[in-house]
Amino acid sequence: MAIAAQHLRARFARPGFELFDHRIFALVSDGDMMEGVASEAASLAGHLQLGNLIYLYDDNHITIDGSTAITFSEDVCKRFEAYGWHIQVVEDGNDLTAIGSALARACAELTRPSLIRVRTHIGYGSPHRQDSSEAHGKALGAEEVKLTKRNYGWPTEAEFYVPARALAHFRQARDRGARWEAEWNGAMERYANRYPQEAAEFRRMLAGELPSGWDEALPEFTVKDNLATRESASRAQQAIAARLPELFGGSADLNESTFTDVKDGGDFEPQNYGGRNLHFGIREHAMCAALNGMAYHGGIIPYGSSFLVFTDYCRASIRLSALAGLHVIYVFTHDSIGLGEDGPTHQPIEHLTSLRAIPNLVVIRPGDANEAVQAWRVALTHRGGPVLLALSRQKVPTLDRAAMAPATELSKGGYVLCESAGKRPDIILIGTGAELHLAVEAKTVLERQGAAVRVVSMPSVELFAAQERAYQEAVLPAAIKRRVAIEAGASLSWYRWVGSDGDIVGIDRFGASGPYTEVLKYFGFTVENLVERARRLLAG
Amino acid sequence: MAIAAQHLRARFARPGFELFDHRIFALVSDGDMMEGVASEAASLAGHLQLGNLIYLYDDNHITIDGSTAITFSEDVCKRFEAYGWHIQVVEDGNDLTAIGSALARACAELTRPSLIRVRTHIGYGSPHRQDSSEAHGKALGAEEVKLTKRNYGWPTEAEFYVPARALAHFRQARDRGARWEAEWNGAMERYANRYPQEAAEFRRMLAGELPSGWDEALPEFTVKDNLATRESASRAQQAIAARLPELFGGSADLNESTFTDVKDGGDFEPQNYGGRNLHFGIREHAMCAALNGMAYHGGIIPYGSSFLVFTDYCRASIRLSALAGLHVIYVFTHDSIGLGEDGPTHQPIEHLTSLRAIPNLVVIRPGDANEAVQAWRVALTHRGGPVLLALSRQKVPTLDRAAMAPATELSKGGYVLCESAGKRPDIILIGTGAELHLAVEAKTVLERQGAAVRVVSMPSVELFAAQERAYQEAVLPAAIKRRVAIEAGASLSWYRWVGSDGDIVGIDRFGASGPYTEVLKYFGFTVENLVERARRLLAG
Repeated sequence: MAIAAQHLRARFARPGFELFDHRIFALVSDGDMMEGVASEAASLAGHLQLGNLIYLYDDNHITIDGSTAITFSEDVCKRFEAYGWHIQVVEDGNDLTAIGSALARACAELTRPSLIRVRTHIGYGSPHRQDSSEAHGKALGAEEVKLTKRNYGWPTEAEFYVPARALAHFRQARDRGARWEAEWNGAMERYANRYPQEAAEFRRMLAGELPSGWDEALPEFTVKDNLATRESASRAQQAIAARLPELFGGSADLNESTFTDVKDGGDFEPQNYGGRNLHFGIREHAMCAALNGMAYHGGIIPYGSSFLVFTDYCRASIRLSALAGLHVIYVFTHDSIGLGEDGPTHQPIEHLTSLRAIPNLVVIRPGDANEAVQAWRVALTHRGGPVLLALSRQKVPTLDRAAMAPATELSKGGYVLCESAGKRPDIILIGTGAELHLAVEAKTVLERQGAAVRVVSMPSVELFAAQERAYQEAVLPAAIKRRVAIEAGASLSWYRWVGSDGDIVGIDRFGASGPYTEVLKYFGFTVENLVERARRLLAG
Repeated sequence: MAIAAQHLRARFARPGFELFDHRIFALVSDGDMMEGVASEAASLAGHLQLGNLIYLYDDNHITIDGSTAITFSEDVCKRFEAYGWHIQVVEDGNDLTAIGSALARACAELTRPSLIRVRTHIGYGSPHRQDSSEAHGKALGAEEVKLTKRNYGWPTEAEFYVPARALAHFRQARDRGARWEAEWNGAMERYANRYPQEAAEFRRMLAGELPSGWDEALPEFTVKDNLATRESASRAQQAIAARLPELFGGSADLNESTFTDVKDGGDFEPQNYGGRNLHFGIREHAMCAALNGMAYHGGIIPYGSSFLVFTDYCRASIRLSALAGLHVIYVFTHDSIGLGEDGPTHQPIEHLTSLRAIPNLVVIRPGDANEAVQAWRVALTHRGGPVLLALSRQKVPTLDRAAMAPATELSKGGYVLCESAGKRPDIILIGTGAELHLAVEAKTVLERQGAAVRVVSMPSVELFAAQERAYQEAVLPAAIKRRVAIEAGASLSWYRWVGSDGDIVGIDRFGASGPYTEVLKYFGFTVENLVERARRLLAG
């Protein structure tokens, strides 16, 4: 959120119009301090000199299993100082004056994020639970609530009791908030008069509306283009980025391989918050968590890139984007054993399946350059949740769309790519990604041998599953039971679509290191093997 | 590894026999310094005062996308000091004397882990690549190799060249290593004479052999026991731990909920490395990474526990244990929406499926108390890879094994739990975990209505898939096409086993917060719904 705020401020603030100088406050716990993702984020925030970010650290010394003394004896303030943060300590969490002063100093600090360590007591005022882990995991219970209220000097009878002074205090906040909002809106009106174009763009971006013509320069590829889908997707992204200033993001130290750096976009760095390319460092989890923050903030369509296998590092944040319905775009390349030499540690096997299993996440694995373009189109137009692109490292042929269905059909998730020349198909071959062309080539071989073959491209299982039953039936008719799916990933994804009588050319073991052509051949991702498996079904 | 070494030392070292005082050296990079898991691990190592752990930080200022200056400006030494580490700096990575002295000082430091920051130059001596990111991601190429060798004053012709002085130097290491090994073996022999029992146990543990009688005290549960599987599994674990000293592990701050703390095992802490219970703190990823280290080290069977949904935080390490074939045991409780009030952030949906997709990982979701006991048996006897137990928070009835197949059948992954009373089944109900008893109860209802029903318990899809085809056919005959699977998780796991004509009672959206009975009912995990779905199949 702090990143998004700095970026929008750099883009839209004008002399006399400091409309975008809001701050991001976070309440953080011992658990947040221990989790690795928070360490990554704090290191990045310090590096980026995010002076608009302020943490209040609720330092209560208690976790679920007991005192933090049993697990956590580091010097948190010193650690954050090492990250480049501004540090303050408030020794008494009930000293509102001290907290107020610390917050004021934190707000005055413009070039460092702020940590305010506040010593608090969990279950404060509860005679038997204060400073105990029981106050974390369990409700106090009626009797202890009563004792606690007595301890506060409160009436013990009312189940929900708010002291009159507290109510009055918080009601002030309501009025003050309304006044501040009106002031801001007034200033925004004056800004809009003075800078109508900027204001219109800001409002459009905040509303999440795409500008007209955003997709006019999308590339079209021909059969002459023999490109990795990471490359064709990158060209699509560049064409979009040129017309869509809110497309903002970066890579976890793999721009050299994922090709997601926006050309001439500038780097987002302390001296240039207007830059659109954020170098996240080797911090996949903080990257994806930050993408969620940017999407929550609004005004930005955030994307992040890495290798598909590294989704394991940031899965918790990918899941949150799906749960929260955030418009986040993930670009994960090197999407199979087809990446070659880096070997099993870098070769995803189960990742496509495990990502498809996340509710409300749309996974797209485009099968050629033109599908990659359409994948980016879906990534921008899809609403209500994140979209993840899985892209190849290795080159794949661009399919001859003159003789096949158009790549725009990708928006339906699955579609008949090439039909069996007027005849009822004997068999359906289903392919995705870099293996799709193998299905097309196998069709040619099988038809030479007399079989009628339909090829279905299925770049997104989720989008296909969301289609009406009639469309699904048209693409995969129940009566055609001979089906073979081919994908260089776990076969678990495909039983649903090939059915009891079908077959799957997948990979259910860890990969191997070698030139990618050899590795793919070794594991059976060849026209020959696909033809052979199809022939077995046809004979059976 | 450092944890395992300290523990074994505390258990086996005797006065005059400091056989187990080896140290763990790690070479770490900028990437390691940035990744969150390493921050968690370093914080934990500092807290545990692991003086036997020494990092050499290869501080070369270069990552794949360029200089670390674009992403990483924190003070690493200060951060590690905050964790409680001993810090040294060597400014010249080619100063072997300085490195040697620093290592000696690090070895002399017994109560703090050591960080030695060594300033190095990537691609050292390469005229055009030194200190550049190209030296990270790309091979130098023939020409640059030649120039580099010339720069070293080496002959440029030989493709593989080792200077004679270097060879002689490294050959010394070979002889010295052989001498040290012989000395250690001799000392171990003397130790074995003096402490025969300890030596025998140490050797047994290191060989990964279970002691005879390890499973003699395993509990058996009766229909009177209405227990969550986290509870029954815990009782099994306690019975095993009492006879298996090498069972060592802990929880990421959820012992209160996962029940994996070994009774009277003591806490592993700086004052008591002989303790068997390690409090990992709120650091799931470091926990699982450390389990891998312990398994690599040997002499320990490590386990770790948390909630199933938090496997997302440590997935990269779970995958590595599977890839490396390590004997690690994962205990993940709160394994479905059946956990109730904590709601969607804590309710796993896709996790069972996504874990099953990992090659070489055995996932077991026991269906009642006696299956939970057998799950622990498999966890200890399985070789060649990790085992993950998925356990319920909520109570489940203990099935009446007198009328059903014994729980020991769990070792086959799936088995016929109750047969359709002599008749050929009209339908097969497949269940796992806390939903298994629903299948048993639905059978009763359906049989009252005249259907012949088989119930299959399928606690481990992987173990079942590894059985011979004939056994699989006996449990799930191809001819019986009416099948319903029930599991409170993503349905993706089940298409393979129910086939084209089957049905699945699963959940493919995020959960909801509420009392668990209400939540389960809302999502259709009831006898009524299962009966209804089965009746539809029977009618169809």
